[in-house]
Amino acid sequence: MNKYAVYHVTDVPYAYGKDIDTLQVRLRVARNDIKSCKVHYKDRYNWTTDFDVKEMKVVVNTELFDFYETDISVDRNRYRYFFELEDYEGNIIFLDDRGFRTDNIKIKEATAFQYPYITEADLYKEEKWLQEAVVYQIFVDRFENGDKTNDLPNTLPWGGEVTPKSMFGGDLQGIINKLDYIEELGVDLIYLTPIFKSTSNHKYNTMDYFQIDPQFGTLDTARELVKRCHEKNIRIVFDAVFNHSGSDFFAFKDVIKNGENSKYKDWYFVDEFPVDTNKVNYYTFANHVSEMPKFNTANPEVKEYLLKVAQYWVKEIGIDGWRLDVCDEVDHDFWRAFRKAVKECNPKAIVVGEIMHEASSFLKGDQLDSIMNYPFKGAMTDFFAKRSISAEKFDDILSVNRCIYMDSITRQMWNLFDSHDTARFLTECDSNIERMELAIAFQFTYVGVPYVYYGDEIGLEGGHDPQSRKCMIWDESKQNKDFFNLYKNLIKIRKENPVLVYGEYKNLVCKDNVIIFERVLGNEKIVVAINNNYGRKTVEVNLQGEYKDLLAENNHCYDNCIDLEPMQFKILKK
Amino acid sequence: MNKYAVYHVTDVPYAYGKDIDTLQVRLRVARNDIKSCKVHYKDRYNWTTDFDVKEMKVVVNTELFDFYETDISVDRNRYRYFFELEDYEGNIIFLDDRGFRTDNIKIKEATAFQYPYITEADLYKEEKWLQEAVVYQIFVDRFENGDKTNDLPNTLPWGGEVTPKSMFGGDLQGIINKLDYIEELGVDLIYLTPIFKSTSNHKYNTMDYFQIDPQFGTLDTARELVKRCHEKNIRIVFDAVFNHSGSDFFAFKDVIKNGENSKYKDWYFVDEFPVDTNKVNYYTFANHVSEMPKFNTANPEVKEYLLKVAQYWVKEIGIDGWRLDVCDEVDHDFWRAFRKAVKECNPKAIVVGEIMHEASSFLKGDQLDSIMNYPFKGAMTDFFAKRSISAEKFDDILSVNRCIYMDSITRQMWNLFDSHDTARFLTECDSNIERMELAIAFQFTYVGVPYVYYGDEIGLEGGHDPQSRKCMIWDESKQNKDFFNLYKNLIKIRKENPVLVYGEYKNLVCKDNVIIFERVLGNEKIVVAINNNYGRKTVEVNLQGEYKDLLAENNHCYDNCIDLEPMQFKILKK
Repeated sequence: MNKYAVYHVTDVPYAYGKDIDTLQVRLRVARNDIKSCKVHYKDRYNWTTDFDVKEMKVVVNTELFDFYETDISVDRNRYRYFFELEDYEGNIIFLDDRGFRTDNIKIKEATAFQYPYITEADLYKEEKWLQEAVVYQIFVDRFENGDKTNDLPNTLPWGGEVTPKSMFGGDLQGIINKLDYIEELGVDLIYLTPIFKSTSNHKYNTMDYFQIDPQFGTLDTARELVKRCHEKNIRIVFDAVFNHSGSDFFAFKDVIKNGENSKYKDWYFVDEFPVDTNKVNYYTFANHVSEMPKFNTANPEVKEYLLKVAQYWVKEIGIDGWRLDVCDEVDHDFWRAFRKAVKECNPKAIVVGEIMHEASSFLKGDQLDSIMNYPFKGAMTDFFAKRSISAEKFDDILSVNRCIYMDSITRQMWNLFDSHDTARFLTECDSNIERMELAIAFQFTYVGVPYVYYGDEIGLEGGHDPQSRKCMIWDESKQNKDFFNLYKNLIKIRKENPVLVYGEYKNLVCKDNVIIFERVLGNEKIVVAINNNYGRKTVEVNLQGEYKDLLAENNHCYDNCIDLEPMQFKILKK
Repeated sequence: MNKYAVYHVTDVPYAYGKDIDTLQVRLRVARNDIKSCKVHYKDRYNWTTDFDVKEMKVVVNTELFDFYETDISVDRNRYRYFFELEDYEGNIIFLDDRGFRTDNIKIKEATAFQYPYITEADLYKEEKWLQEAVVYQIFVDRFENGDKTNDLPNTLPWGGEVTPKSMFGGDLQGIINKLDYIEELGVDLIYLTPIFKSTSNHKYNTMDYFQIDPQFGTLDTARELVKRCHEKNIRIVFDAVFNHSGSDFFAFKDVIKNGENSKYKDWYFVDEFPVDTNKVNYYTFANHVSEMPKFNTANPEVKEYLLKVAQYWVKEIGIDGWRLDVCDEVDHDFWRAFRKAVKECNPKAIVVGEIMHEASSFLKGDQLDSIMNYPFKGAMTDFFAKRSISAEKFDDILSVNRCIYMDSITRQMWNLFDSHDTARFLTECDSNIERMELAIAFQFTYVGVPYVYYGDEIGLEGGHDPQSRKCMIWDESKQNKDFFNLYKNLIKIRKENPVLVYGEYKNLVCKDNVIIFERVLGNEKIVVAINNNYGRKTVEVNLQGEYKDLLAENNHCYDNCIDLEPMQFKILKK
């Protein structure tokens, strides 16, 4: 047995309360190294009866590892447990808090792993509406100009050439006007890039957190937008830019003006006074971005101010949560307080971080509900768009990504493949729409929340910022309607099949650029087959039975193989 | 290269802010598997210059693994980094956020590990006074009866037979009377088992958190004790029993009396009303311990009440921190608030948990400063007292224990080998004092805070509770004075040699029941040699040079071997 590969710790995601009565335990071993794995468990204070035993099962395979998982229950939320691993030669090894043992007799209560108590206060409560949602991101200035009276004088004609500073007049009324379109597409969670008062087109340099940017509308327009969304069962989250303010935010202006005497001087990190926006002698977002001075969120006054903002918009107009800009550069302590503040106003409101890398320390249940899943984006781009990695590598990246968080969090990940901060996916595909079709088929049948960046659904293209922020095309003759209909169909299929949200994910085939996987929930099973080749493939896979093709809407019997046309995908329901 | 063994995550203890300007990074690999390990690092937003490179070094070896570590610094606390591992054949592998790579060219900023920001709010601040301390635990009823006027009628003669319910009259005045003794021994941190009003001798069932138990003294006695300790530069911590109250605590009494109508009904976990202390139809500490109903610490009122208690004793009489009883069954959220509440009153006060197993989720810096190190106790008992494990196994257990927390936390661990909850160590040694001498030589020269359970220092014996809670022996003719002097000497040696507190620990020899290790800090070096055999040993070890024997107080030159008498230890300073 490969002991080097075996890993367990009594912390998320290897041990955590799934609910108050259930402990989820996970164990990592080398891939295909053991025949079975059991967990022995009991009430922590049960000195009279023996440990119960439960078989664990493999839920994820990565290139190197298998992850075994199960859940266990005892009466009073207090657990002792240890693992029993059996290899293919029948050798048995036990693993407990003190390491490996080969002698069962030596397993005692005292040396077992302990999960001392599942406490109500620490319990992570999953958000099922989020798991079932499909996100639609809108970059407001570029979606639809619904109110020309609030346009700035320098507003450009809709659809013109995009530069870093161009303004196109998109606004909240525009979104309201297009809600029927959004509803028709079928998405049900809108994420808006910032809409508070700010000089830029992206508005990530906030001047006033309590005011809707006049270009975008008023408090009433925002309220109307949220109300109209809710009437259509569409939820909406705003963008919380709390890592930094704009340089024209009142507190920073006061620091510029009054220097060391400013009562806001500790709201920021100033190298030396006077503050000089040309020298940029203060901490900012990224590299000397003078118009984005970094907040000192450890300062209680700053914390209080920003939490007030967070609560205000949830309470005042009823938004359904926040996406957190540059989330990873703000302290955990702040996000813990932020989570509490938001959930206090609406327990079902969500908190989603912009974090582009492994984010365990933010996703243990005390801070975020989800993050923008950039490792997913990377794998999708490399496999489907650029075709630069193998199916095996693609699967490995996603499998690793699927086992570093709690299962509930994994189901809540925002699985994007593009955004305002990346090139458009279709452009990454060199405009080959069939590549993107495979990608969205995967995205809508995989574990986690599918994410659509406005315009992707009608074939909008564009390279890196600012080209990925082009105006939405509303002229139907210029929209790719087939593509829109595919999106619409896939969203409908996802909505109609909870197995795609909650079902287990199991890879069946992963080689020669072909991926076949199944999602299983109770008696429900969906098999997805994707041929990422410009040639036909006949693939051996044990399907055995009659399936309904959910896109073609016909039935077909399969036994031990499946034929796939070039760049074809199938979504088959048993 | 053994990829299965390689482990890193951007979270404590693999990556954390050592201070605001320094990131500590750690990487695990298979033991003796690689020749070298480097970390490449840069400012997260530095797109212009290449990564800096720093060699890492092995700081811990366990049976299976080597742990490489170093610290790195960039200008604005924001890090990207990846690792370069070279095996003995000269093969090089890179490890970044997306896994292993063999091609250097593919290492890009985008796929590096990221520690986005070391924030002031999340930074764990080590407590050097704690690292330098020696703990002395006092079980108050059994230490010294200093005031006979507060004795209960059923008080037994000092030194009589101990039963679970016996009372011996020990009190706070007794401790005050014996402070000169404690000072002479040289310990400088007293931990008292509970002293608040309670019916039992151990007082773990609290009736009133704001009142000193009348058997033990008054608020004034407690104040006097703390004052007199501080005058002698001795710190003192109390025992916070916040997992449960006594059943005679006002809130639980109200629940018993008023049932569902009690305004305290949500302070506890009641299965059904009326509450019945015979049926024990409510959650308690351990198994149906009716006099210890478990608090619902998720209830804001309970939280507020207990935090008030925590703050009161720090502010009112100036205690130096808290030891937290049954810490692991109370939620993380509570301990985070507790830490803040206590540090708000005294930033140097400490918070030490009773957790008997792996406790990563409590020791990430946001909750505890330390725990009672029971895995250390287990290893010490098995190797020195019971002689049931090999030196290699002993070293492995401690090495694992040394690499699961931040280095600063490891230096703060309360390294006990007995307490009121275990048998006395000398009794575990079958009364062989020479075994215990080796154990304390190790304890006082190892990494972490040495811990003396009252009476151990004069050879007090006793099996499991209640026998481990015998009355202190003050009759000098019955004390083992040689043993006391050895303790005194070892404490003095530790106090005079910061290398024993802060120095790196390196194992030099570990076989045939012999352990030789060195502690190194700058130019200071101490070598400790322990022969846990009832026979002489001549051991090969490269010492090369003149050393002072800190106990024998003579000098001796060593080259490549050392002679050790049966059950001898040497503490040698270069």
